[in-house]
Amino acid sequence: MDSTTQRAAKTRKSIGARRNPASQEAILTAAQEVLAEVGYGRFSIEAVARRAHAGKPTIYRWWPSRAALLLDVYQRQKRDGGGAVPGTLEDDLSDFLRGLLRFWREGEAGAIFRGIIAEAQGDAKAQAALAAYNEERRQAFCTMIDRRKTNGEVRPEVAPTVLWEVVMGFAWRRLLTGELEIRDKDIAAFTRLLSIGYATLE
Amino acid sequence: MDSTTQRAAKTRKSIGARRNPASQEAILTAAQEVLAEVGYGRFSIEAVARRAHAGKPTIYRWWPSRAALLLDVYQRQKRDGGGAVPGTLEDDLSDFLRGLLRFWREGEAGAIFRGIIAEAQGDAKAQAALAAYNEERRQAFCTMIDRRKTNGEVRPEVAPTVLWEVVMGFAWRRLLTGELEIRDKDIAAFTRLLSIGYATLE
Repeated sequence: MDSTTQRAAKTRKSIGARRNPASQEAILTAAQEVLAEVGYGRFSIEAVARRAHAGKPTIYRWWPSRAALLLDVYQRQKRDGGGAVPGTLEDDLSDFLRGLLRFWREGEAGAIFRGIIAEAQGDAKAQAALAAYNEERRQAFCTMIDRRKTNGEVRPEVAPTVLWEVVMGFAWRRLLTGELEIRDKDIAAFTRLLSIGYATLE
Repeated sequence: MDSTTQRAAKTRKSIGARRNPASQEAILTAAQEVLAEVGYGRFSIEAVARRAHAGKPTIYRWWPSRAALLLDVYQRQKRDGGGAVPGTLEDDLSDFLRGLLRFWREGEAGAIFRGIIAEAQGDAKAQAALAAYNEERRQAFCTMIDRRKTNGEVRPEVAPTVLWEVVMGFAWRRLLTGELEIRDKDIAAFTRLLSIGYATLE
């Protein structure tokens, strides 16, 4: 367990509260509806509490900040990509990137995520929520890369975290500059570069 | 000339104004002082105009938005890195990244640049100012990569823009997540990955 997860677990335990799945779902649904109605900028915990007939303290007990709640709404909109048979890492990274940029283009997801990144620049709570979210995703990615090392597809000295930073950096920058339309050949050029590098092959 | 530069040139011509270097310097100095005094959030064109004894229309004629003026203040703080003898691309990218992250850590530059990115998420003028700034930097980078192709250091089929996106994506994400402290070995791992890729060498 990393320190972020430990901290989160400790916080929850200390107030003696467990998330109740049904109320949690009701609150997330209310949050999604509020977001659709008023947009990112005017989204508020108050409005979610009113719509879900829940107390604000209950919501804050489970989600310590507006950003944390929004990240769960964001996450919930993701289609389940599990179950796909893994291909080469180059193909899987291409599929992942293509899917992520499409997810951000269509619906509210891109607006939510860029809003959270912007908010994190001036708000420590949003920065912490974003860091916890990233850490969870980073760990899953690194586990996948470690499997590829065992298979002999990835060189043993490659740092999985650096690879993760490169993939997410590429995607984030596209989101933040509003360049979510991407040609397949540009995705292929990116994953090819990651696979074999820019250097002249001897 | 790309379309952004053409547009910028046309806009300036159509209002019949040329930047006067002396007043321009005075305004940038005033902007830098205002920024140091009140910080990014409360920085305003009004305060710059008062301090520089310049009219707001004059400032807006040269800088169409708060973000455009801030980007020039930001740019001005950069130390001149020209004149260095180029090494291998791997070394030069390492130096560039190390320097950029240090520049963002020390002084106001990091706060300005992350502020502009955040502002661009909800403000079309800031987005446009950021795009124009990026485009200028991208072109200089691509020219450098094309030289490396002529030297045989970079494979001819590598897209310079994709390489640029990877380097800037990595740096931006570090800035936006507040991870500007970076170990030399992580920079080396990143530039090595770009150079030879993750794939097992046959």
